[in-house]
Amino acid sequence: MLEDIKERVYKANLLLPKYDLVKFTWGNVSEITPDRKYVVIKPSGVDYDSMKASDMIVVDLDGNIVEGNLKPSSDTPTHLELYKKYKEIGGITHTHSRWATIMSQAKLDIKAMGTTHADYFYGSIPVTRDMKKEEIKNDYEKNTGLVIIECFEEKNISPKDVPAVLVANHGPFVFGKDANDSVFHSVVLEEVAFMNWHLVSLGKNESMSDNLLDKHYLRKHGKDAYYGQN
Amino acid sequence: MLEDIKERVYKANLLLPKYDLVKFTWGNVSEITPDRKYVVIKPSGVDYDSMKASDMIVVDLDGNIVEGNLKPSSDTPTHLELYKKYKEIGGITHTHSRWATIMSQAKLDIKAMGTTHADYFYGSIPVTRDMKKEEIKNDYEKNTGLVIIECFEEKNISPKDVPAVLVANHGPFVFGKDANDSVFHSVVLEEVAFMNWHLVSLGKNESMSDNLLDKHYLRKHGKDAYYGQN
Amino acid sequence: MLEDIKERVYKANLLLPKYDLVKFTWGNVSEITPDRKYVVIKPSGVDYDSMKASDMIVVDLDGNIVEGNLKPSSDTPTHLELYKKYKEIGGITHTHSRWATIMSQAKLDIKAMGTTHADYFYGSIPVTRDMKKEEIKNDYEKNTGLVIIECFEEKNISPKDVPAVLVANHGPFVFGKDANDSVFHSVVLEEVAFMNWHLVSLGKNESMSDNLLDKHYLRKHGKDAYYGQN
Amino acid sequence: MLEDIKERVYKANLLLPKYDLVKFTWGNVSEITPDRKYVVIKPSGVDYDSMKASDMIVVDLDGNIVEGNLKPSSDTPTHLELYKKYKEIGGITHTHSRWATIMSQAKLDIKAMGTTHADYFYGSIPVTRDMKKEEIKNDYEKNTGLVIIECFEEKNISPKDVPAVLVANHGPFVFGKDANDSVFHSVVLEEVAFMNWHLVSLGKNESMSDNLLDKHYLRKHGKDAYYGQN
Repeated sequence: MLEDIKERVYKANLLLPKYDLVKFTWGNVSEITPDRKYVVIKPSGVDYDSMKASDMIVVDLDGNIVEGNLKPSSDTPTHLELYKKYKEIGGITHTHSRWATIMSQAKLDIKAMGTTHADYFYGSIPVTRDMKKEEIKNDYEKNTGLVIIECFEEKNISPKDVPAVLVANHGPFVFGKDANDSVFHSVVLEEVAFMNWHLVSLGKNESMSDNLLDKHYLRKHGKDAYYGQN
Repeated sequence: MLEDIKERVYKANLLLPKYDLVKFTWGNVSEITPDRKYVVIKPSGVDYDSMKASDMIVVDLDGNIVEGNLKPSSDTPTHLELYKKYKEIGGITHTHSRWATIMSQAKLDIKAMGTTHADYFYGSIPVTRDMKKEEIKNDYEKNTGLVIIECFEEKNISPKDVPAVLVANHGPFVFGKDANDSVFHSVVLEEVAFMNWHLVSLGKNESMSDNLLDKHYLRKHGKDAYYGQN
Repeated sequence: MLEDIKERVYKANLLLPKYDLVKFTWGNVSEITPDRKYVVIKPSGVDYDSMKASDMIVVDLDGNIVEGNLKPSSDTPTHLELYKKYKEIGGITHTHSRWATIMSQAKLDIKAMGTTHADYFYGSIPVTRDMKKEEIKNDYEKNTGLVIIECFEEKNISPKDVPAVLVANHGPFVFGKDANDSVFHSVVLEEVAFMNWHLVSLGKNESMSDNLLDKHYLRKHGKDAYYGQN
Repeated sequence: MLEDIKERVYKANLLLPKYDLVKFTWGNVSEITPDRKYVVIKPSGVDYDSMKASDMIVVDLDGNIVEGNLKPSSDTPTHLELYKKYKEIGGITHTHSRWATIMSQAKLDIKAMGTTHADYFYGSIPVTRDMKKEEIKNDYEKNTGLVIIECFEEKNISPKDVPAVLVANHGPFVFGKDANDSVFHSVVLEEVAFMNWHLVSLGKNESMSDNLLDKHYLRKHGKDAYYGQN
């Protein structure tokens, strides 16, 4: 079952090497079914070159394998926590893409410093707090999801408005309305992370004006959007 | 009508991904007709892969669509202001190319620090002032054009001598005698922006001597030029 | 004899340009036979384009050429010292890859600052001490091996847990269970060297928590590993 | 006449875009005939894509065109001064390659900081002094050659030992035993310029020990060389 969504998730995973977001198998993309009962995700540690659409794993929201002969990505419990919490998330991408990972390791929020950022992210992309010893020892991957949720809740951010987060000392988790959209946002994230590093490096780390942020975000999103074709 | 110029504008737009100046649809190139009555420009938010020459939009100088079934680039009003003001501009390119955008966000003029710069830009490439709340809220794209003009007027610069400007917190607008020439200057701009960031980062941000600037600019431009074939 | 291992070493050497780890002939990969009597290594200064599997050189552990018509890599004595000392090393790669070489020249350990590092290296990747005048003048390449061993011994590191070292003012030597695995680790090393330079450059050079380091290394290595397929 | 050398110079020029050392037409390679009477050089401002071997220009040492229908590179007088002065130079490459140009604009010598440098350059790669107003106004290209010679003379450097120089605010001139060899050295120069920028940026700008410099340079050059095949 779910051959269509497996095909989409498979193709979205192949975009990661295409956009130079991963080395080897260091990334995974998933998508949730429209009824929000099942998640389709990449198998763990399988080469992109030999991977097939039929290798995608179907799990339920408790992490039980419903279909597939391989183990799902070890990050699956992180994905599941996020799907359970946020109905606005339809797809998730996790990578160790270079610039977003550097900012994750530096524990620096990626502030909105230009219109490239404002076109897709409605404010700073935050970094999670350090995980505690117990959170790391037991249920580490599930707790990674919970720490992301805590970060968004505290800052009152919806992953629809800011579809990315940096896990401290680790790397980005990125969201979208489906698998493909979460990869798209991963490319944008990498681009703004690149630019922000080069600004922070010059001693510049101030957000742009709210007026300009509003203008650019809202000309692309919401009821008054006028960018692109109808 | 205008099939020739549509073809040229289409091809100039395809150079943006070729020269790695854009991700996705983040750029647009236009050209004005020789009688300076119509502007041909890329449609808004259309993929480069599926775009055709016949998709190019023809607008008049008031922004009315004269030919084409799609919406023109949302930046069209910026282009129009610039064509109306400067007879010496025949083509315009706007991108979010990485290094020029970093310098735009850092609000740093790109000073003439070497002969690569001096061969094509006769002095510093300036950054515009921040736009005011009202300028952003209403007629934002038109006002972007007016702020560029204000910047050039104040510094007494012609876009023929310095065929590029950085819009603060946004990115570059680049000029040429036609669409193709404005893309060419965009490549040069990206190169000098790259080099200048790496000099500013070492604490070096001094212009080269006027003697050397004159020599290199004038051996390529004007009546005494001797570079290249006749 | 040893046609299989020659083929493997040949192919592993070709991965160096593929992964952009070398310019021209600036690298070499070797593998030791299972009985640990012979080492197969790339010939010295031969172009990757014209090189054939049959060009690989077989030497014994004293450096005598057992098979092959060309001179082996000038770094062969370094490889031999390391194979003699460490039974856990099956393959060795030496390159002048850009980022690892920069860190070697800066004489900066590559600290474990994120999970990309922790997935493959169980702690800091160390830099060797400066070599002494006499060590450089006579038996330089052999002494390079001895200085690497001294570095690992002093810090009580096994090349199985930390499969790479930076030779001061020179570049990395990287280890694996076979030739291919040592190239794999070279790619990871280059990636973490890249990220660490960009963190050090921002004034950040602290290791991540031991808890997180343990978690990521041990979920991929040892008896409780759960990453990847069985 | 000279079809062989035209073919070689043509091919060497095509290596510049291959090795990513030039944008557009921003570079030129030349070679002198064995009798040191004629220099074959790229025509000025001609596209690499449309250029043919037969487009190469032959000039004598006074700069008179002996063969060819196009104008020679505008940098020809610089090449000629260097060929006249140094019998050890057989080929010259001039580019605006990114990293060597950054160091030229920063007016920073490229010090020998690692073995990659020491394998090909026997000490620091120097920057020329600023050119004077009169030197720029008249016979600029010839004077560029004279300033390079002054730089080498003052520091007592032979272009055989250090086959590159950085012209201040301009870019590198690189030497070799023939055209191809000068391109090879340009690639090495770009690599060490890249690494040195990243070391200077961390506040590190010390040369390596003379012992290690001697070892690496002399194991590749001179009568006791033992690197590579015979």
